[in-house]
Amino acid sequence: MTDEGKLFDRVCLIGLGLIGSSIGAGIHKWGLADHVSGYARSQETRQTAAKIGFIDSVHESAAEAAVDADLVIICAPIGAMEAIAKEIAPVLKPGCILSDVGSVKKAVIAAIAPHISDNIYFIPGHPIAGSEKSGPDSGYPELFVDRWCILTPVEGTDKIAVEKLRKFWLALGSSVEIMTPSHHDSVLAITSHLPHLIAYSIVSTASDLEDVTRSEVIKFSAGGFRDFTRIAASDPTMWRDVFLTNKEAVLEMLGRFSEDLSALQRSIRWGDGDALFDLFTRSKETRQGIIEAGQDTAEADFGRDHASDKPVEDQ
Amino acid sequence: MTDEGKLFDRVCLIGLGLIGSSIGAGIHKWGLADHVSGYARSQETRQTAAKIGFIDSVHESAAEAAVDADLVIICAPIGAMEAIAKEIAPVLKPGCILSDVGSVKKAVIAAIAPHISDNIYFIPGHPIAGSEKSGPDSGYPELFVDRWCILTPVEGTDKIAVEKLRKFWLALGSSVEIMTPSHHDSVLAITSHLPHLIAYSIVSTASDLEDVTRSEVIKFSAGGFRDFTRIAASDPTMWRDVFLTNKEAVLEMLGRFSEDLSALQRSIRWGDGDALFDLFTRSKETRQGIIEAGQDTAEADFGRDHASDKPVEDQ
Repeated sequence: MTDEGKLFDRVCLIGLGLIGSSIGAGIHKWGLADHVSGYARSQETRQTAAKIGFIDSVHESAAEAAVDADLVIICAPIGAMEAIAKEIAPVLKPGCILSDVGSVKKAVIAAIAPHISDNIYFIPGHPIAGSEKSGPDSGYPELFVDRWCILTPVEGTDKIAVEKLRKFWLALGSSVEIMTPSHHDSVLAITSHLPHLIAYSIVSTASDLEDVTRSEVIKFSAGGFRDFTRIAASDPTMWRDVFLTNKEAVLEMLGRFSEDLSALQRSIRWGDGDALFDLFTRSKETRQGIIEAGQDTAEADFGRDHASDKPVEDQ
Repeated sequence: MTDEGKLFDRVCLIGLGLIGSSIGAGIHKWGLADHVSGYARSQETRQTAAKIGFIDSVHESAAEAAVDADLVIICAPIGAMEAIAKEIAPVLKPGCILSDVGSVKKAVIAAIAPHISDNIYFIPGHPIAGSEKSGPDSGYPELFVDRWCILTPVEGTDKIAVEKLRKFWLALGSSVEIMTPSHHDSVLAITSHLPHLIAYSIVSTASDLEDVTRSEVIKFSAGGFRDFTRIAASDPTMWRDVFLTNKEAVLEMLGRFSEDLSALQRSIRWGDGDALFDLFTRSKETRQGIIEAGQDTAEADFGRDHASDKPVEDQ
């Protein structure tokens, strides 16, 4: 490791799941700090983290891990953040940057800010990256590459500290956008929280049918259902906390979605083919926008194991 | 081409989009017929098909293409099938197998069967494979490999003919399941039609927001929304016809889904974290079933460029 990319002396990660382990691996890969300390609630996670080595020191408490750190990132479920903030607040080094990776920002600020003294720079953050996998052995350093990270500093936050945290996420390969906590929560309600809610819901609907068996649903899932189960396999604790803490924005988006779905239902019931065709055509354009913005590829991916790439002469 | 894999002398494909072109390419790749004739409504598609060469002869009408064929597969949108059946019926060779690839089976049978004489074996089919891409240049021979193909012969259909068509799909790499047209339409309503409807609907909701811009939706789509746009980019004509012709089963599944979504909405509104957690945990199990059934992989795919597959020894 050289000092070329170094931004911090000591970074502390509290929570060592997919996001924490990927940040740790990224810091090592690009030499962003001299030392990464870490803590996770479960002993099993701590042991796995120590074994994989994406952090340099594993500690028995969040407070112990946070001592002397220049940057502390809380990578735990939102419901655990207030207790963590209370625990580490007394030991945080003056001038230290405290951030998090929670999917909701207003609630995280309400949980953390009251416990943090003025000589700490608290800058909430949210990397828009992840997968349906969780746990310390699912992380990899490139998780944030070409993804967006949103920072939501409250008014009056020190600009130099924000810039330093921004540089950290840029160094992990992300683009960085700064917005208000409230706007973040609206944007994420439609781009992430509502899609997950719907995915969970349809998987539940499919499990409860009488005339179509669960094994048939699984067998024929390649027709579209499969794509929903992917995000419905995400970490239950994290998502419970998201819906409990971004309630207002999620219910607002859900209300709009239900209205739009009812309109579609009506078009089907009345056989209004033109209305269906117009809506389906407009959807293609949004898809094209996402591909152009580099947030997905145009590759047909329905085979997922990329059968099309393999030779199959033996058939 | 050797005769080793040959099942038919002459196969005719009517409709040369993603499915038609993939069948043609598969027949060539595995030598399943001596000659593949084809027809598409649009001249542009016919020209592209002739250029790519996944069929041996391109014709100016469906009837001309169907002459002398032992197997005719209609690969056109459901709304076009009745006219095609009427047109080709007089020229079909006695003993010929007529099939299709439509996503709805009761409606396809109602459109085709009345026009076909008794000396033709009409066996409706539906390969559960596809991608959000369409058109003759999106096909590839392995599209059906490790996917399911459902055949829905009506009662009394000649068993030898069904077996021959089954062998054809096996030769293209698929597994084959036989069920009634009505059961097919229920299974597909939940595994494919409802997911597409929901995906189209949420893309529409996201496009109509006031406080979140379309560009923000696109930028931050990696949080989950992206996975919905993939299937919402499918062919509008095909999907319009699906919803118009499988109305009853789709409305039934949609009604169940709306109920389940309302229950989830209520859990969020009342802050019932336990109910949310339980539901989210059950969803993970369905996902696991799909992976075990070989209908998807467990690879984290959010990066889509498969960054996680790369070696990370340099940490």
